Amino acid sequence: MGEWLSSTAYIEKRKEELKDKIDSLKKKYGRSPSLSVVLVGNNKASISYVKRKEKFAKEIGMKAETLRFDNINEKDLLSLVKKLNNDDGVDGFIIQLPLPEDIDVNKIIESISPAKDVDGFHPYNLGKLFRGEDALFPCTPFGIVNFLKFNKFELAGKNAVIIGRSNLVGKPLSILLLKENMTVTITHSKTRNLSQKCSNADFLFVAAGRPLMVTPEYVKQGAVVIDVGVNALTDSNIVKNELKTLPEKIKLFDKKGYVLVGDVHPEVVKKASYLTPVPKGIGPITVLTLIENTIKAFEKRAG
Amino acid sequence: MGEWLSSTAYIEKRKEELKDKIDSLKKKYGRSPSLSVVLVGNNKASISYVKRKEKFAKEIGMKAETLRFDNINEKDLLSLVKKLNNDDGVDGFIIQLPLPEDIDVNKIIESISPAKDVDGFHPYNLGKLFRGEDALFPCTPFGIVNFLKFNKFELAGKNAVIIGRSNLVGKPLSILLLKENMTVTITHSKTRNLSQKCSNADFLFVAAGRPLMVTPEYVKQGAVVIDVGVNALTDSNIVKNELKTLPEKIKLFDKKGYVLVGDVHPEVVKKASYLTPVPKGIGPITVLTLIENTIKAFEKRAG
Repeated sequence: MGEWLSSTAYIEKRKEELKDKIDSLKKKYGRSPSLSVVLVGNNKASISYVKRKEKFAKEIGMKAETLRFDNINEKDLLSLVKKLNNDDGVDGFIIQLPLPEDIDVNKIIESISPAKDVDGFHPYNLGKLFRGEDALFPCTPFGIVNFLKFNKFELAGKNAVIIGRSNLVGKPLSILLLKENMTVTITHSKTRNLSQKCSNADFLFVAAGRPLMVTPEYVKQGAVVIDVGVNALTDSNIVKNELKTLPEKIKLFDKKGYVLVGDVHPEVVKKASYLTPVPKGIGPITVLTLIENTIKAFEKRAG
Repeated sequence: MGEWLSSTAYIEKRKEELKDKIDSLKKKYGRSPSLSVVLVGNNKASISYVKRKEKFAKEIGMKAETLRFDNINEKDLLSLVKKLNNDDGVDGFIIQLPLPEDIDVNKIIESISPAKDVDGFHPYNLGKLFRGEDALFPCTPFGIVNFLKFNKFELAGKNAVIIGRSNLVGKPLSILLLKENMTVTITHSKTRNLSQKCSNADFLFVAAGRPLMVTPEYVKQGAVVIDVGVNALTDSNIVKNELKTLPEKIKLFDKKGYVLVGDVHPEVVKKASYLTPVPKGIGPITVLTLIENTIKAFEKRAG
């Protein structure tokens, strides 16, 4: 029987450290790091993410603002990005995705100044990551590696298998894990014998976007499993069948009408040595890393 | 018994196609694509590479020049890069590596205009590659994928294992192979049980920089093996012991005092379905791709 590897203690510890850091930055530079978040539209998940980002920033004494638009066209969004690029009071900003379909996302991302690109999505920052140089790195994969190091896992020489090859998680995570001297396999929807390949992993990273897809047969006895997925299950039959051994989840579902699960089936905790839960796993780490990136951007600009 | 997969026929065919292409570009735009190569110092291998690049370009009707310096300091090299960036007659240029130790290579690479970076080394171009967007891609890995496609190998769903995680080959190759829907494993000097991991590969890519390291035990029966290494062996005992079954290589050694070998032992051809030779394998493909990149850069600027 393995353990749940919650991020809560890590987040709390980092929060205290970052509060102190911001106090000292304020004393040194006369102002706090400042994050702006641009939110377009009414996507419920986006609104919730953005709120968490702003809340976290303010809790540790940073300045944060959300610029919210019901709608905006590409030209006006480009103007806004330009304004934020040139605003000395803004250290970092993000454009919350997804954007309306008529906006060219790549064009918007490339218009962001790499020095303020605290999501780490700009090709320049990804290229620096790729070349093993310092830059602003994508929040989820960078946060995962920091979390593993905080927990003192020995990574060098170990087999990492990643499910998912997205620009946000799978691909940048592969580069960061290589830097830790892991042997890295990237798998995806076209991979054959996926469960067999995953069962070679000492560390299995799952960012597939498919609720509960990773079952115990995918997992080597004693592996560390990192679940990046966040999915809301709303179908009562699926919930009551799949989560029948987890009465707390069922209770939550009965109360709220949905329940959050990852891409990894909770049964996996019995076979793994550690499994990150959903919620209270990687989600808060992504928010933390955004804040850390903003402080880094501030220090580079101020220094 | 497998076959040697020489690149000679592919190169000759592409050369004819590129000649025609350049003729039509000349007619359309009134000038040929133009490549500049900056060479610093007296590294013998660099001099030989640079000559091959210039020769290839001229053979197909392109303009090419080599700017050669016995030595140059960082400031002057940055000025030269700036001049080449702003020279309308230069479509693409490369700074041949290695550079003298007192020059910051990353600084030089980042000063190159991404639109003229025909080596595909600039972080911006690597970031675009990473995001699955069009750009100038690193020559060796991009050329390898084009060569595999020319030979009509079925790649999707197959297992690729790469030995070596360099910025020039291993890392960008992993991204390009993912785009072809392969399942990709990146291994390196810290990988445990390397030969066992390689023996799972349908396609094995070797860019380790260690002569003859990949022996038949690394290779699955019928695998395709791509040898990116180029090493000059000069030790008579090693040559006569390792290459004893290859009388032509021994004869060459006796004549020249050295012999070129890859990172893959020639014995592997008996177990693989295909193995690229050294020489006449991936080396000329790298040169070809540099020329293709220059034509692409020309067309983007001209269009």
